[in-house]
Amino acid sequence: MKFCSECAHPVALMTPPGDNRLRYVCSQCGVIHYQNPKLVVGAIPVWDQDGDTQVLLCRRAIEPRLGYWTLPAGFMENEETTADAALRETVEEAGANIQLHDLFSMMNVPHVHQVHLFYRATLLDLNYLAGIESLEVAMFTESTMPWKDIAFPTVTETLKHFFADMRKVREGAPFGFHARDIMKPMRAATE
Amino acid sequence: MKFCSECAHPVALMTPPGDNRLRYVCSQCGVIHYQNPKLVVGAIPVWDQDGDTQVLLCRRAIEPRLGYWTLPAGFMENEETTADAALRETVEEAGANIQLHDLFSMMNVPHVHQVHLFYRATLLDLNYLAGIESLEVAMFTESTMPWKDIAFPTVTETLKHFFADMRKVREGAPFGFHARDIMKPMRAATE
Repeated sequence: MKFCSECAHPVALMTPPGDNRLRYVCSQCGVIHYQNPKLVVGAIPVWDQDGDTQVLLCRRAIEPRLGYWTLPAGFMENEETTADAALRETVEEAGANIQLHDLFSMMNVPHVHQVHLFYRATLLDLNYLAGIESLEVAMFTESTMPWKDIAFPTVTETLKHFFADMRKVREGAPFGFHARDIMKPMRAATE
Repeated sequence: MKFCSECAHPVALMTPPGDNRLRYVCSQCGVIHYQNPKLVVGAIPVWDQDGDTQVLLCRRAIEPRLGYWTLPAGFMENEETTADAALRETVEEAGANIQLHDLFSMMNVPHVHQVHLFYRATLLDLNYLAGIESLEVAMFTESTMPWKDIAFPTVTETLKHFFADMRKVREGAPFGFHARDIMKPMRAATE
């Protein structure tokens, strides 16, 4: 941020009176430009048949992580709920018809100023179709899942929790809710 | 938003190519200024003694809802996790020492572009002290709670769920996780 979005005056990075953090502040009109984390919301679209659980993934057609696989997800928009966002992103990226269930995971990613939410969902039919942000859309079981080519750690963590919970659910347990923090990997001490 | 924060040129409200929403776009440098919902995160600080469950509330010293009671909560900051935010806000607004437990509620408030999260917490001592954003800090049981003077519907909903869960917890059940959408009240049809 270089200029005030209200008056076009250059902003300065400073700690406002009564605050304890650096903010972009306009010395002309006095506006403080707060910057806050964004929500990324998505779904875990599940197709369950003959005891074979498959999850729908999208291969990314855009950066970051072009070519890698992800659950359908994206930035939540103003005026929508988290469930609205999960449904919308699943339609936009995978053209998939889903029924949404409970929130399954919440993953903090503080170094990129994001919180990721994933809802469990049932895939209602197999008429999915890659949207413009996806190269392809496909379904995977736990064993066919492209574990080494998943785009984001929050998706890997969510999928691992999902398949672990599925084993318990088959024995009568309910699904859990999984909250995790994904911290920036530390460099090895010898580097 | 009136001016581009990157180049100070006036922005226009338009739907960028490949998008389907109005955004503030700079015709000079091409930057699209996305605006997204913010997270408000707080705690339910509980003092439990002799079967008497009290919850700590703060009376707001600032607008909006000056003079009304709220759980300690505020806007999540970049570089922190949701749990960090709940702890920080509880210290800032109530000077309270707490131990944080699981996420208890997630409330969408789409008409103000917010998602509110509340964590259950144990108050570790009674050395709390109103911060500069609070007029006073006090503990209430379910029956002494100032129900008509609660600042925000997300706080009322969270407190109602909390006391309802407490009755089940005393009989051995676990706490639930409560997700709700608080929609803007519709005007009566006759108005």
